Amino acid sequence: MRTIDWNDESNTIKLIDQTLLPSEYKVIECKTIESLCESIKSLRIRGAPALGAAGGYGIALAAVLSKTDNMDNLTKDLQSAAETIKATRPTAVNLAWGVERVIKATSDAYDFEGMKNIAIEEAKQIADEDVAINKKIGEHGSKLLEDGDTVLTHCNAGKLACVDWGTALGVIRSAIESGKNIKVVACETRPLNQGSRLTTWELMQDNIPVTLISDSMAGHVIRHEAIDKVIVGADRITEDAVFNKIGTYTHSVLAKEHEIPFYVAAPTSTFDFKGWEGSVKIEQRNADELRYFGNVQIAPENVNVYNPAFDATPMENISAIITENGVFHPPFLLDEVLI
Amino acid sequence: MRTIDWNDESNTIKLIDQTLLPSEYKVIECKTIESLCESIKSLRIRGAPALGAAGGYGIALAAVLSKTDNMDNLTKDLQSAAETIKATRPTAVNLAWGVERVIKATSDAYDFEGMKNIAIEEAKQIADEDVAINKKIGEHGSKLLEDGDTVLTHCNAGKLACVDWGTALGVIRSAIESGKNIKVVACETRPLNQGSRLTTWELMQDNIPVTLISDSMAGHVIRHEAIDKVIVGADRITEDAVFNKIGTYTHSVLAKEHEIPFYVAAPTSTFDFKGWEGSVKIEQRNADELRYFGNVQIAPENVNVYNPAFDATPMENISAIITENGVFHPPFLLDEVLI
Repeated sequence: MRTIDWNDESNTIKLIDQTLLPSEYKVIECKTIESLCESIKSLRIRGAPALGAAGGYGIALAAVLSKTDNMDNLTKDLQSAAETIKATRPTAVNLAWGVERVIKATSDAYDFEGMKNIAIEEAKQIADEDVAINKKIGEHGSKLLEDGDTVLTHCNAGKLACVDWGTALGVIRSAIESGKNIKVVACETRPLNQGSRLTTWELMQDNIPVTLISDSMAGHVIRHEAIDKVIVGADRITEDAVFNKIGTYTHSVLAKEHEIPFYVAAPTSTFDFKGWEGSVKIEQRNADELRYFGNVQIAPENVNVYNPAFDATPMENISAIITENGVFHPPFLLDEVLI
Repeated sequence: MRTIDWNDESNTIKLIDQTLLPSEYKVIECKTIESLCESIKSLRIRGAPALGAAGGYGIALAAVLSKTDNMDNLTKDLQSAAETIKATRPTAVNLAWGVERVIKATSDAYDFEGMKNIAIEEAKQIADEDVAINKKIGEHGSKLLEDGDTVLTHCNAGKLACVDWGTALGVIRSAIESGKNIKVVACETRPLNQGSRLTTWELMQDNIPVTLISDSMAGHVIRHEAIDKVIVGADRITEDAVFNKIGTYTHSVLAKEHEIPFYVAAPTSTFDFKGWEGSVKIEQRNADELRYFGNVQIAPENVNVYNPAFDATPMENISAIITENGVFHPPFLLDEVLI
């Protein structure tokens, strides 16, 4: 099933609980705004595109659950749910975007029942559009992969970060669907191990050959010509740099040193037209992520830790950016990307 | 105290139990060959130079424990202990070297008591020589560091891998001893986290400023000019490459890209005169090291894993090799290093 979806029978949200992967695959039902918010906070659902859909479905759920019988009160209920949902991860722009898009759509309704139906339909539309965009990214990007390629990827830019298909992993899925044999090398992606927990899992579900390595092994495997291309996703693309999970920049330097292509796959919604590298503040995460692994202590309790969530890869290290509008090569002109 | 030492009062071996670090600092006594062997097998003591001392002290312990009263039988007891100790880690050349060196020294004894004394004295000599070599490495290498430098290191090439002082970390200790302010950035060193568990611990013990990062963050911190130099140890140095813990090669590429020095600190005993990169078989370690962390599952049970213990860094990526005989710059001529 999709990472997140609407259950038409029960009018609830169903989603894959990513905190249990890879040990357990479990689909949970969110029947209340509280349970949806708990799922977002606990990272049962994560990834920018997936959170956009979660925001939209949240408003649909609020409409279904509303006990009022008139449009004004329903609008108030939706506004209240919107604030609650957005507050779960205030920096996740997609979450707020999904919420607001459904709220806005409901304002076009003529009557009370219409509002409820529009909320559900608009939320489904967000999810469907996300899948369509990823399929387009896959279609464009798959032309860059050759039969027999081994592709290195970092973090999880897969279906679990989106509604379905994925961005970087979507390109790989599309290439395989077009008949090419592609193997994947997944970097574990410290400190939260999205590569080992999620990327390997979702590729194995689809019987796509995948080998897990530690992030530090990338240089060794690239030097030994075991990698043909690198493909990663992106969290934000400014005019001069691609922001993505910490470790991405190191891979780009290795790709440059060994003259293999370094591709970024991301929807155009990832482009930040007003930003440049220096204008983006990189989130610093909790030091304990490097001091503990579950209940296992792996560093002195009070050791000083530097734990940035993202790094910036300068445009000159990037061979191409794959979007739903096509594949763009250097120099990356934003006007061109957004045609 | 030293990583491993002889207890003159009880005639036993004492060593820091490294499996308990960083949660607990505990010195254990090995009163039997069995307990020493268990300590070596369980990695309570590890690191090539430290294992050389462990081998030597093992034979000294066997001499003390021998219940015989004549030289012939003592020789047999020592030979038996030698085989038992060497079998614990058959590929650890330093362990066998330490064992054999003490065995050979005892053959010069004139009488039974002399044999026992020679065994103890020769084992102590091995440990003292190791410290002296590391101090010499430190003395030579410290000249490469400037007051205010921040140095990135990988794995643990510190006192815990040796008898005391350390190789890469010994250079840092010597620079600090000579009055320079030096800060260290320690990479956690996946998958066994010797950087986060051991390097940070031993530097904090000495009040040397250290910041822990994941291996994948090295590119980001070097790009942001937070690192002045990289210093690592070595497991083997052939004429064309330095073999060291997996991840070292990636750091060397980053150092080259950003034009900062990349130094290797190692005793001349690390040089493998007959070998070249292609002649060295890299140990593949258990896949579960990347699938589990203690009892925490971090990857699908049956995921394919590539887990090499070491990588090779070609000589052209190395700015200098620091040995007890001095600092050597490219081209690295083995004759010169071994004067």
